[in-house]
Amino acid sequence: DTAFRASEHQHIRYNPLQDEWVLVSAHRMKRPWQGQVEPPLLNTVPRHDPHNPLCPGATRANGEVNPHYDGTFLFDNDFPALQPDAPSPGPSDHPLFQAEAARGVCKVMCFHPWSDVTLPLMSVPEIRAVIDAWASVTEELGAQYPWVQIFENKGAMMGCSNPHPHCQVWASSFLPDVAQREERSQRAYQSQHGEPLLMEYGHQELLRKERLVLTSEHWLVLVPFWAVWPFQTLLLPRRHVRRLPELTPTERDDLASIMKKLLTKYDNLFETSFPYSMGWHGAPTGSEAGANWDHWQLHAHYYPPLLRSATVRKFMVGYEMLAQAQRDLTPEQAAERLRALPEVHYCLGQK
Amino acid sequence: DTAFRASEHQHIRYNPLQDEWVLVSAHRMKRPWQGQVEPPLLNTVPRHDPHNPLCPGATRANGEVNPHYDGTFLFDNDFPALQPDAPSPGPSDHPLFQAEAARGVCKVMCFHPWSDVTLPLMSVPEIRAVIDAWASVTEELGAQYPWVQIFENKGAMMGCSNPHPHCQVWASSFLPDVAQREERSQRAYQSQHGEPLLMEYGHQELLRKERLVLTSEHWLVLVPFWAVWPFQTLLLPRRHVRRLPELTPTERDDLASIMKKLLTKYDNLFETSFPYSMGWHGAPTGSEAGANWDHWQLHAHYYPPLLRSATVRKFMVGYEMLAQAQRDLTPEQAAERLRALPEVHYCLGQK
Ligand SMILES: O=P(O)(O)O[C@H]1O[C@H](CO)[C@@H](O)[C@H](O)[C@H]1O
Ligand SMILES: O=P(O)(O)O[C@H]1O[C@H](CO)[C@@H](O)[C@H](O)[C@H]1O
Repeated sequence: DTAFRASEHQHIRYNPLQDEWVLVSAHRMKRPWQGQVEPPLLNTVPRHDPHNPLCPGATRANGEVNPHYDGTFLFDNDFPALQPDAPSPGPSDHPLFQAEAARGVCKVMCFHPWSDVTLPLMSVPEIRAVIDAWASVTEELGAQYPWVQIFENKGAMMGCSNPHPHCQVWASSFLPDVAQREERSQRAYQSQHGEPLLMEYGHQELLRKERLVLTSEHWLVLVPFWAVWPFQTLLLPRRHVRRLPELTPTERDDLASIMKKLLTKYDNLFETSFPYSMGWHGAPTGSEAGANWDHWQLHAHYYPPLLRSATVRKFMVGYEMLAQAQRDLTPEQAAERLRALPEVHYCLGQK
Repeated sequence: DTAFRASEHQHIRYNPLQDEWVLVSAHRMKRPWQGQVEPPLLNTVPRHDPHNPLCPGATRANGEVNPHYDGTFLFDNDFPALQPDAPSPGPSDHPLFQAEAARGVCKVMCFHPWSDVTLPLMSVPEIRAVIDAWASVTEELGAQYPWVQIFENKGAMMGCSNPHPHCQVWASSFLPDVAQREERSQRAYQSQHGEPLLMEYGHQELLRKERLVLTSEHWLVLVPFWAVWPFQTLLLPRRHVRRLPELTPTERDDLASIMKKLLTKYDNLFETSFPYSMGWHGAPTGSEAGANWDHWQLHAHYYPPLLRSATVRKFMVGYEMLAQAQRDLTPEQAAERLRALPEVHYCLGQK
């Protein structure tokens, strides 16, 4: 009998956080790629463009003029998917036709006044300011809404329609699908094992080491055992923290520093401004914020699409949409590659 | 109070088949698009290219030479994600680290000897031959494997690495994630309501009409109430059929004809060879095929990414990956647009 080796033998892995399976077939990396390559990146973003609605001093679609901000800048999305009031669809007339009211707000947060920087090119204090702004907006919108989703789409490949460094914040009157799944899984784990799922998971990864990418005094970055995207990572505090606003000043500084390192490694991997979607998940907020949410552990997911190079991505199509996610290298291989990369950005050069 | 109108008021809808929610915010279609546009399609696929491994007479990566086939042609994928034997990862040592054995086969099925045709440009008898080949491969691989996933990735935008008309068939020793979800939902519905979920659903859509795209003697095509992709459709037999091989010759002919109509409408929508991933779902097969699977109804899902034009797609990123699927026009609006389109292909012109 052949001994099992994850990097050679296909197998399926379970995601206990989102209750999903992934097919891992690392031997697929051997196949030649003849499919679509992405258009090359335009590296010629001007630092300031008065016609870009995200720039300081620019006029937005609704006629408002942006202030001449010099740090972060938060404003209402001019084309929000969620608005504060919308009538309810009313009761359903059939179990197969269920609709419910959705209310909320969508905000945009600029990270920096310049269009030609990205988080890894910003300084640690500048990133720290972004973290503080994330904590405040969570607090502000979380006072009213049960879920505040902070997410960043980076790069045209991720549908990002504006190169200016920014993220979005969508707060909703409902727990979105993924939040519901994480809520169910974490609640069940806590009640069965007496501790938060992600606390035990982080602890185990620190012992096992093979999926760690970065560690600091207060944070861990790892490629989860059940990662779906080639270089997906999970960013976790070491302490039990339920939501962003609970982070101490020291933890925020340390987070800024580990984020800069992670995003620098990402850019260095294929020497490109690495596209991804990322987002924060923490305990629900709103009127139930005071309930017991101790089974929740704050975390951020990074979902980058690139697989082989700056222009060849993983397509989550066909089998993935109809049957099950499938990945072409093991999480351990991905972690090893990320670990080996320098923490100095390829654009900043070595002294 | 304002009366609720789905095309103006955001709301969430439930997918009872896959147990998921979608956020519908139709007013978002008003926003301008400044994001990535897809590279224009190369319309210059040669009918025959001896270096294309899918062509008749061509030599494949493993050295095998394709026959000079003149209908459909089925062969083993040279870079399979699933292989017939792989050792098992063995028992898990921790509930958060669960892996299981995965075995299977991956096949490729060419639809036609020519590289420059697609299903909507093929004749009804030629499409009928594809349907027969789908039924046979389900029967053949279903004798051994519990799940036989037939899927087609069409277009470079859907990661399709070869323009020659073809689909893939991945058979697995496990029920993939989506199959498990559909199994759970259909089983629960049957036990609660005494009839198959999709039989009742098709029946309701025939009564409600607003989401129907095409109907024929034996088939329905509709935009499901819970559709996620802008022009997603569901193809359903009217009769209770659990798996492809059970289709009668008349039902197969009728399926070929309705598929040609649907795919012609898709191509006509933006006057482009419409990209999509599609796939068939039917009752599980393998050693348990003889069990009671009456809660299952055969169906095909079509997931096309285009939203606004031949080059502007919907990106399922950020909020969608981290929180919940979101769509920018209602399923009813999508169905209306598809219904209105001609059934003669724009490339074939009117007589
Ligand atoms: O058609 P290919 O080259 O096998 O590959 C394509 O379809 C597969 C199955 O949906 C995906 O896993 C790949 O990411 C995609 O590029
Ligand atoms: O609002 P944006 O950034 O233009 O839009 C982008 O992110 C949204 C939220 O993830 C998605 O719904 C859109 O499909 C995507 O293009």
